[in-house]
Amino acid sequence: MAYKDEQLNEEKVFKDPVHRYIHVKDRVIWDLIATPEFQRLRRIKQLGTTNLTFHGAEHSRFNHSLGVYEIVRRIINNFEDKPHWNKDERLLCLCAALLHDLGHGPFSHSFEKVFKLDHEYFTQAIIVNNTDVHTILERVSKGFSQKVADVIAKTYKDKLVVSLISSQIDADRMDYLQRDAYFTGVSYGHFDMERILRVMRPIDDQVVIKSSGMHAVEDYIMSRYQMYWQVYFHPVTRSAEVILSKILHRAKVLYETDYTFKLEPVHFISFFNENVVLNDYLKLDEAIVSYYFQVWQDEDDDILRDLCERFMNRRLFKYIEFNPDKQMNKWMELHKLFQEAGIDPDYYLEVDSSSDLPYDFYRPGEEEERLPIHLLMPNNELKELSRHSDIVESISGKKRTDHKLYFPADFLENLNEKDSSKKRIMELLYDQGANE
Amino acid sequence: MAYKDEQLNEEKVFKDPVHRYIHVKDRVIWDLIATPEFQRLRRIKQLGTTNLTFHGAEHSRFNHSLGVYEIVRRIINNFEDKPHWNKDERLLCLCAALLHDLGHGPFSHSFEKVFKLDHEYFTQAIIVNNTDVHTILERVSKGFSQKVADVIAKTYKDKLVVSLISSQIDADRMDYLQRDAYFTGVSYGHFDMERILRVMRPIDDQVVIKSSGMHAVEDYIMSRYQMYWQVYFHPVTRSAEVILSKILHRAKVLYETDYTFKLEPVHFISFFNENVVLNDYLKLDEAIVSYYFQVWQDEDDDILRDLCERFMNRRLFKYIEFNPDKQMNKWMELHKLFQEAGIDPDYYLEVDSSSDLPYDFYRPGEEEERLPIHLLMPNNELKELSRHSDIVESISGKKRTDHKLYFPADFLENLNEKDSSKKRIMELLYDQGANE
Amino acid sequence: MAYKDEQLNEEKVFKDPVHRYIHVKDRVIWDLIATPEFQRLRRIKQLGTTNLTFHGAEHSRFNHSLGVYEIVRRIINNFEDKPHWNKDERLLCLCAALLHDLGHGPFSHSFEKVFKLDHEYFTQAIIVNNTDVHTILERVSKGFSQKVADVIAKTYKDKLVVSLISSQIDADRMDYLQRDAYFTGVSYGHFDMERILRVMRPIDDQVVIKSSGMHAVEDYIMSRYQMYWQVYFHPVTRSAEVILSKILHRAKVLYETDYTFKLEPVHFISFFNENVVLNDYLKLDEAIVSYYFQVWQDEDDDILRDLCERFMNRRLFKYIEFNPDKQMNKWMELHKLFQEAGIDPDYYLEVDSSSDLPYDFYRPGEEEERLPIHLLMPNNELKELSRHSDIVESISGKKRTDHKLYFPADFLENLNEKDSSKKRIMELLYDQGANE
Amino acid sequence: MAYKDEQLNEEKVFKDPVHRYIHVKDRVIWDLIATPEFQRLRRIKQLGTTNLTFHGAEHSRFNHSLGVYEIVRRIINNFEDKPHWNKDERLLCLCAALLHDLGHGPFSHSFEKVFKLDHEYFTQAIIVNNTDVHTILERVSKGFSQKVADVIAKTYKDKLVVSLISSQIDADRMDYLQRDAYFTGVSYGHFDMERILRVMRPIDDQVVIKSSGMHAVEDYIMSRYQMYWQVYFHPVTRSAEVILSKILHRAKVLYETDYTFKLEPVHFISFFNENVVLNDYLKLDEAIVSYYFQVWQDEDDDILRDLCERFMNRRLFKYIEFNPDKQMNKWMELHKLFQEAGIDPDYYLEVDSSSDLPYDFYRPGEEEERLPIHLLMPNNELKELSRHSDIVESISGKKRTDHKLYFPADFLENLNEKDSSKKRIMELLYDQGANE
Repeated sequence: MAYKDEQLNEEKVFKDPVHRYIHVKDRVIWDLIATPEFQRLRRIKQLGTTNLTFHGAEHSRFNHSLGVYEIVRRIINNFEDKPHWNKDERLLCLCAALLHDLGHGPFSHSFEKVFKLDHEYFTQAIIVNNTDVHTILERVSKGFSQKVADVIAKTYKDKLVVSLISSQIDADRMDYLQRDAYFTGVSYGHFDMERILRVMRPIDDQVVIKSSGMHAVEDYIMSRYQMYWQVYFHPVTRSAEVILSKILHRAKVLYETDYTFKLEPVHFISFFNENVVLNDYLKLDEAIVSYYFQVWQDEDDDILRDLCERFMNRRLFKYIEFNPDKQMNKWMELHKLFQEAGIDPDYYLEVDSSSDLPYDFYRPGEEEERLPIHLLMPNNELKELSRHSDIVESISGKKRTDHKLYFPADFLENLNEKDSSKKRIMELLYDQGANE
Repeated sequence: MAYKDEQLNEEKVFKDPVHRYIHVKDRVIWDLIATPEFQRLRRIKQLGTTNLTFHGAEHSRFNHSLGVYEIVRRIINNFEDKPHWNKDERLLCLCAALLHDLGHGPFSHSFEKVFKLDHEYFTQAIIVNNTDVHTILERVSKGFSQKVADVIAKTYKDKLVVSLISSQIDADRMDYLQRDAYFTGVSYGHFDMERILRVMRPIDDQVVIKSSGMHAVEDYIMSRYQMYWQVYFHPVTRSAEVILSKILHRAKVLYETDYTFKLEPVHFISFFNENVVLNDYLKLDEAIVSYYFQVWQDEDDDILRDLCERFMNRRLFKYIEFNPDKQMNKWMELHKLFQEAGIDPDYYLEVDSSSDLPYDFYRPGEEEERLPIHLLMPNNELKELSRHSDIVESISGKKRTDHKLYFPADFLENLNEKDSSKKRIMELLYDQGANE
Repeated sequence: MAYKDEQLNEEKVFKDPVHRYIHVKDRVIWDLIATPEFQRLRRIKQLGTTNLTFHGAEHSRFNHSLGVYEIVRRIINNFEDKPHWNKDERLLCLCAALLHDLGHGPFSHSFEKVFKLDHEYFTQAIIVNNTDVHTILERVSKGFSQKVADVIAKTYKDKLVVSLISSQIDADRMDYLQRDAYFTGVSYGHFDMERILRVMRPIDDQVVIKSSGMHAVEDYIMSRYQMYWQVYFHPVTRSAEVILSKILHRAKVLYETDYTFKLEPVHFISFFNENVVLNDYLKLDEAIVSYYFQVWQDEDDDILRDLCERFMNRRLFKYIEFNPDKQMNKWMELHKLFQEAGIDPDYYLEVDSSSDLPYDFYRPGEEEERLPIHLLMPNNELKELSRHSDIVESISGKKRTDHKLYFPADFLENLNEKDSSKKRIMELLYDQGANE
Repeated sequence: MAYKDEQLNEEKVFKDPVHRYIHVKDRVIWDLIATPEFQRLRRIKQLGTTNLTFHGAEHSRFNHSLGVYEIVRRIINNFEDKPHWNKDERLLCLCAALLHDLGHGPFSHSFEKVFKLDHEYFTQAIIVNNTDVHTILERVSKGFSQKVADVIAKTYKDKLVVSLISSQIDADRMDYLQRDAYFTGVSYGHFDMERILRVMRPIDDQVVIKSSGMHAVEDYIMSRYQMYWQVYFHPVTRSAEVILSKILHRAKVLYETDYTFKLEPVHFISFFNENVVLNDYLKLDEAIVSYYFQVWQDEDDDILRDLCERFMNRRLFKYIEFNPDKQMNKWMELHKLFQEAGIDPDYYLEVDSSSDLPYDFYRPGEEEERLPIHLLMPNNELKELSRHSDIVESISGKKRTDHKLYFPADFLENLNEKDSSKKRIMELLYDQGANE
């Protein structure tokens, strides 16, 4: 039998708290899961620093990747007897689902920002370069690995396949909303996925939703909205992210200025030099990062040492609301006062902004390019969701942004009371309305 | 106000998936949670290698410790208006609950075995030596840290207090059964804790259960039984444990034989020398261990390198049932055959045994010393559980043991077919009934 | 001890699937639950005909009433140490919560419409007239029953007390949303009530919500919206309601036209005459109604017999969308055609309309008078919810109405094919766009 | 297309709280659900008087019947590609599952005892006699209704088919345990049905369980045990049952002694005469029974009136433990004392016994004839469950019986204090140890 059609003697199952069981029957999928590149995802948390806010959120990207695979498997199962569905794309969809996050590194957000990386680039690289994953995919058929990479890059020609993994209601989002809700323990993030799967229909170039399932989709969109503001953008999580970025930034600056580390940061060198090769990238996981942060607690550099102690022991920055349009003067004054007080504002005063668009219809060229959701009406016409749902219409396209100003409250309290800058800093940070 | 009575301005809550919310009002508890020693528990998984079997089981001991604290808090809340209850012990109970696992290191089971350590010793050490935790406890009152240590060591004079943390139905077990069930996703591990808490009554020297709640306790005991055999003793988890122990063992042997590691294993030196001091112990967490295992994948020693690759990439040992009473000849023959085939049996052939006693009445001097469960009958007499419950009586004192023989199936398959030992090895391992 | 302060020797609990346990410690509450008037609520389903759509929805108003009591009990528990809270109102709140639906009869909606009744009137009547409930309340203190009645009627002077039972986020709604979701099995209706209870604060004349809990409230409002459209206004449920109303209407017409029933409808006489006295009202429950509907299946009157058979055996009317603004001509033509075909349109052609206002700020004099929700901001100001929440703002005041036209599809199919009206009726009902 | 193969255009689903969705694709099943005989099950509670103990337990047999159908549907889905499975039996299994409880009447237990009925006889009668259900089944094929009746009667030749509906781990039990747990809200009754369904295998004459699923089966058996003692045999529920039986008994005695009822009990006449015909039986539902009990509250007969008031208003009998082997003297003395005190012991003093056998291996000729559970071992041998499971072995064959003595505590308290029998009665009932 061809490798691509090989089935395991007996279906294997993974016990999963979110989908109850994850079922694997294809030999290809089984082999992909066993690769070092995929197993590496066990060592990268799905939600980065969120576990410092919600202690249950310690789940890995391995977890999530299996979940996305399982959802796509169930969708395709339902599609099997539907028109428009090309059965030959089945394995491609499953592989793309399983591998869609393969290039994520530890704390991707901060690493990407500081070292100018892009996890999507590495996902592609792992799939098409010389790795175990690549070897397995090429055994399916020559060129298959490139197809998988194309689906994940959304450039694959069959847009129906792409939309399973990347749209405004794809398997990726449906898994992470439920999974992150489960592990954090929040009561948001629940919606009737079983119903949504039942009303999904494949058409030419996308997956659409039978209009009878509209309310389940509304519920999904509201869940997503709540998860963004209650979990993903939680200000405490962002405080830890700020510190993390500052650590990476500081280490890079020290490296560039020929500081001598007590332990040579071998795993970071190519990151500092911004010439990361795949092999170095694959070696980096959260354990490695955590190892360095721990040993850096004994470094001579005050800033690096302090930031690492903060991160490891969860002594985070405090925050206040900040309005960049109206409060730049305040920020500039604080910047100056921090400098005078000997607290380097480049590391200890940071504005962090988060914004989300709960749902949007399609506007070509816009940043958020995920496809809008289309309803399949009883008369077989398609209708864009926000044109049929009052609730979705009312929030469609409404971008919301939140800005916070982060700072080390403990440092400020320890400033000498007689220091004139202390009084003014406190006024600016804690006195609502001061100087606005 | 005395530090011991200080309350937070506003109650703090942690969102917890198992108990919904964990409530903190005492300043002392809040301060203990913020110590580096307690935050370190975030970097130690509650279930060690279990996540290689149940991918959801990535939760930390930090998680569990908060949970035990919360259960004890709720129990004490119910006790407040009960006779026999000494309100002055409240804070002591809460601190002991929170800190009871403080001395756990990474993969405690294997580390303790290979390096002859004892996590209970370190829990004591952290509490009574010069740490942030110690400082906070001594602020409560002089000698308070020793009291907390005594409760955890079960030597504290008030046995009622001890029994909250250590008995056959204590807060520790009630938390971990539910928590481990939640994160693995198995359907066992559920019981009606709310009811059990409602029927708990303090008497002189122990917590007893009103007999009307007997069935909830039966359910708890059955849950415990199922969790042991379905989760804690899962043979795949034990396979990873075997490999982990072998890695530690090999590294120690190499160190003792003056092998030159490419990277000096500074974090392990005092472990290898079996003279671990507290400070070294506190530095060790799972990230550090994982770091070494990763770099050891590039070591020259074949065995260390292979075992680390297995552990990091989850290429585990396979297993068969093994009966030590009847099959020692088989084991000896395999041992010899492995040697002949060039596979060192000291690292690649291992019998692992697990055993559990689902419940037992008290037998002084026995290994399992946890107090039996007493029911409070309507006539105010006490009755040991197994004398009242048919179900518990039927399983009481019945120890069950499971033995498995672990080996690297991949190595064996790669042996030369012509090698006569291969055939015999395969026969011994896979041919049911061969040579028994 | 005064009756009002009497406590049960041991707290009693009811096992409740929604709130886990309902706790009763007050003798007064225990006695009220035992009255025939309260026990009668066991024989009245919470959701009337909804169980013909969602088969799980067989739960009674007894169920719900206990739930509302329990929620209020928990809220008051949290209030005990808060300023503004008058502890003397505790028992009043609990009684009002427990008894707020006491006057509901079977299938209230239809009965009230056909017989011009008002369940709120009967709730008052049961409380202030000569019943067991009344006797118990007056034992608390003279005039206490009237206070309870006033709270339920929203005329009680202390508006804070009233708002616990009747506002846009009261105990009544919080219970029924969760309870109805649980018993129907739908995935809507969930929100984090524990969090909402934690952030409720009593102020002078209302309960407000700390702004940190805003998202939990948003979730509650969205749940409410979904429950209305997915469950409460489900068109199949309304079909059964239409038939039920027609049965009552027909029976009344027959009685008024001196039709001789095979069994004299003694329980209905005062309803037909629209002079229902309390005693007659209390005798009516769903079993009595069901009994009559069953025996009326053997009546001589074709319409009554047919409608009862439909209701008992769930042979419901079919429906199509209907737009009263644009389609009155259609309706008039159908009315005439039905008459010609011998199908009495007064009983077999009905427009049913449902409408809901998901949330509204206060507009004096409007139909929906429930108080809006106020957030308590960090600076202690109050802010009306929709002025702070984007999501709520976007749906606030947006009334949505749904109209359906109901008819007996089976009758129409059985019309003689040659009958010219059949073709036209079918065209009007099934041909989308015909005649619009 | 033949009627038996007809499929609905679109799959229909029922929202079910226990199984999430119940799926119907077969026209035959859809038509059976719509019959008056099946719809009648909506008016019969699954758990009789249990809702007087657990207020959530108001669910109907309609509910449960759909659930059993759904489980069998899922089992058969899994069987489709398995050897030993005869696909032609599919529709037969589904029909038998759906209809297996069709002959249940209101409060079956009491009715059967007092009127010497048997619901299994009526299930058969409805299926093979002239009913809508019968007509539909005969449209499938001539004689098909008899086959369905045979499966339910366990006399069908293919024992594999029978075992799906009637064995110690059949669809019937798996549904009711979970459903009754859900609606009562108790925490027992949960087990991993999804796993059990996955490990079920059809062999010649029974369904067996792959041994890897043994622990899920153990959990199921423990759930069953807990549900019996915590829910089904709850002493308060049995108190209501005792009163119900006494009402029926009293009414029968009055009828036989030519008492003139104010309302002629037409629905009961053939029951009193013990010559019930199918048509009368089908007319009886809980609403009818409740109607009579309500009107009998106004009867002249003191006993009938009192008992009906008790049942309707939940003024139940109290109970004490009773040991029939040792306490018959006590019972006889009470019997005499009750007579002396003017409280008819035939109606007001009753011993009720409940007993359960949690699991048993097969003993031909024994009362409990359900097949034992067989495990399919890895070597393809069958092993009876209790020979492999320690837990099951320990409870296997252990019958447990509980006896309670019921009496009207309120009557006794109202006896004249001077009455010498009062003192002695109180002594016998409340003085533990008196006269034993």
